[in-house]
Amino acid sequence: MLSEFELIARHFARSPRAESHGVALGVGDDCALLTPSAGCQLAVSVDTSVAEVHFPADAPASAIGHRALAVALSDLAAMGATPRWCLMALSLPDVDDAWLAEFAAGFHALCEQSGVTLVGGDVTRGELAISVTVHGEVPSGTALARDAARPGEALAVTGSLGGANAGLKAWRAGERDLTRPLLARYLLPQPRLDAGQALRGLASAAIDLSDGLLPDLGHLCEASGVGADLDAAALPLADGLIKALGEEGAHRAALAGGDDYELLVSLPLAALEQARARLAEIGVVLTVIGTCSATPGVRGVTTVDGWQHFPRGET
Amino acid sequence: MLSEFELIARHFARSPRAESHGVALGVGDDCALLTPSAGCQLAVSVDTSVAEVHFPADAPASAIGHRALAVALSDLAAMGATPRWCLMALSLPDVDDAWLAEFAAGFHALCEQSGVTLVGGDVTRGELAISVTVHGEVPSGTALARDAARPGEALAVTGSLGGANAGLKAWRAGERDLTRPLLARYLLPQPRLDAGQALRGLASAAIDLSDGLLPDLGHLCEASGVGADLDAAALPLADGLIKALGEEGAHRAALAGGDDYELLVSLPLAALEQARARLAEIGVVLTVIGTCSATPGVRGVTTVDGWQHFPRGET
Repeated sequence: MLSEFELIARHFARSPRAESHGVALGVGDDCALLTPSAGCQLAVSVDTSVAEVHFPADAPASAIGHRALAVALSDLAAMGATPRWCLMALSLPDVDDAWLAEFAAGFHALCEQSGVTLVGGDVTRGELAISVTVHGEVPSGTALARDAARPGEALAVTGSLGGANAGLKAWRAGERDLTRPLLARYLLPQPRLDAGQALRGLASAAIDLSDGLLPDLGHLCEASGVGADLDAAALPLADGLIKALGEEGAHRAALAGGDDYELLVSLPLAALEQARARLAEIGVVLTVIGTCSATPGVRGVTTVDGWQHFPRGET
Repeated sequence: MLSEFELIARHFARSPRAESHGVALGVGDDCALLTPSAGCQLAVSVDTSVAEVHFPADAPASAIGHRALAVALSDLAAMGATPRWCLMALSLPDVDDAWLAEFAAGFHALCEQSGVTLVGGDVTRGELAISVTVHGEVPSGTALARDAARPGEALAVTGSLGGANAGLKAWRAGERDLTRPLLARYLLPQPRLDAGQALRGLASAAIDLSDGLLPDLGHLCEASGVGADLDAAALPLADGLIKALGEEGAHRAALAGGDDYELLVSLPLAALEQARARLAEIGVVLTVIGTCSATPGVRGVTTVDGWQHFPRGET
C-alpha cells in the first residue's frame, strides 16, 4: 500500500491557484493556513458519505468524488455562503490507483466549478467512506439560518423535487447511463450555491433538502417554532418523474424522497418577486409550495400515511 | 437506532459558553457560523482515528473520545496555533447510549481543557471511526511550518519519547490501568498546545511526533531541504521506559515508536535559552537531540537497521 503521504501527494496536491484563494499554506504540512476575509463570518460543516449507506459502492468513482463534495457544499448553499476551502478524510479498503485518480478527478472538477480549494486531508484504511469539511464565508449577519421563518411567510423551493429518488430507483433497476437526467440528479447532485447567495437579504430562513421535503421542512419548522400549510398540487415535480414513478409515486418522491439538494426557503411575500427575479438571472426557478403558519404541524399533504418519515438510511 | 439528529442533540449539543468563543451559531443548523479573529490566520487540519488501526476498539470510550481529539489538536500545537473550534464526523457500528455518553465525556473534557468548542458533526452507521477537523488561530505570519529549518540550527523535542510505544505494548500484554503513566501516554495523549504557542517567534520549524521521531524528522528535513546529525544518547526517554522495554527496546521506541505527540522543533542556537525558559514556565522540558545539517540524510543513530521505518499502521 502506498503511504498516506504518497497518496495525498499524487492525487490531492495543492492547486497551483491556491495562493490566490486565501491559502497561505495548503496540503502537506501539519495544518493548512487560511486567510479569512475581513467582515465575514465563516460557515463550516462536515458531511460523511458511506458506501452502501449514502451511495452505491459500484457507482463511477468520479461520481462518488463529486457527490461527497456536493452534499457538503449543499450545506453552504443553505446558509447563503460562498465556498472557500475544504478538507477530506478518506477511508479506503484498498488502494486502486485508477479508481483514486477518477475519484480525485470528480472531486477536483466540482472544486473548480464551485470555487472551493482542497487544503487538507487524511487517508486511512477502512470501509469506503468520505468525510468532507467545507468552509464558506458570508458577510457578517447575512447567513440564512433555519430558525427565522415567521408565520405568514411563503415557503418556496428551488428547482424541482423527486428526481433523485427516481434516479436511485433507476440505479437499483440497473440503469447506468449517467447522462439520464434522473440518474444524474441522484449521483451528480448540483448544490444550489448561486441560489443560496442570491437569496441572502431576501429569505428569512433556509435549509437544503437532503432527507426529503417533509422531514427537512419539519426541521425548519421546529427550529423556527412555526407550522406549515402546504399546497401539494404546487410541488415542482422533476421532468419525467410521473412517467418514471406514476402519479402517486411521483408525489411521494417529491415529498419524502430525499437527495434532491434543492433549497427550501421561507421569505416574506413582499420579497418574493425580487427573489424570483434574482434566481431567474441564474436560471433557477423558485416555486411557492405553501405558507408558514403560527399553528404547529404540517397540513395540506393528503398522503400523510406514515411513509413520509422514511429515515435517511433508506438509500 | 436513534436518528442522527437525536444523537447529536443528546450528546454533542452546543456548549453554553459557545457565544463567548466566536461561535455565532453552533451545532444544529446546516453550518456553524464562526467569527475569526482579526489579524489572524486560520490553521485547519483533519485526522481520522479508526478502531484497530489507530486505537484498540475495546479501549475505554472516554479514552477513545479524548484520543481522537488529541491527535487532531496535536497538529494545531505543531503550528503554534491557539485552538478555537472543532467538528466531528463519527461512524458507529451500532448505538450504545452508555458508550456514547462516555465517549462524549472524554471528548468534551479535552475540549474544555484545550479551549476548543465543538461546532458541528455528522453521525453515520459504519465501522467505528472518528474524523475530527480542528480550527486554530495564529497571528498572521507567525505559524510554525515544517519547511523553514536551516543548517546549523538545534533540533529539540518537548517532553519525553517512547512512552506511548511502551503503553501500546502494555495494552497488548493485558494492562488496563489507565493511571499507569506509560499506558496513559498511549491512550490519553496530551497535545503540546501551550508549548507550540510558546515557541512562536523562536522556533523556525516544527512538526508533531505522531509516526515516530525518525519518520517525522524525515518529513521535516525533506520539507526544509536539510539533513540532521542526531545525538542518540541525548534522547529524553520516558520515565520507566528502560525498565519496561530494556535498553535497546527503549531506544527503539524513542526513535521509531510513534504516538508520543511531542513536538520536534528546529531553532537557532541563539533562541535556545529563551525557548527553554518559556517552556519551563509551563512545566515542559526542551531537550536538544541534534543539529540541522546542509548534508541530506540522518546520521548519529547507530541502530539504523531498517526497523526505524515502521509504518504508521503498526498500531
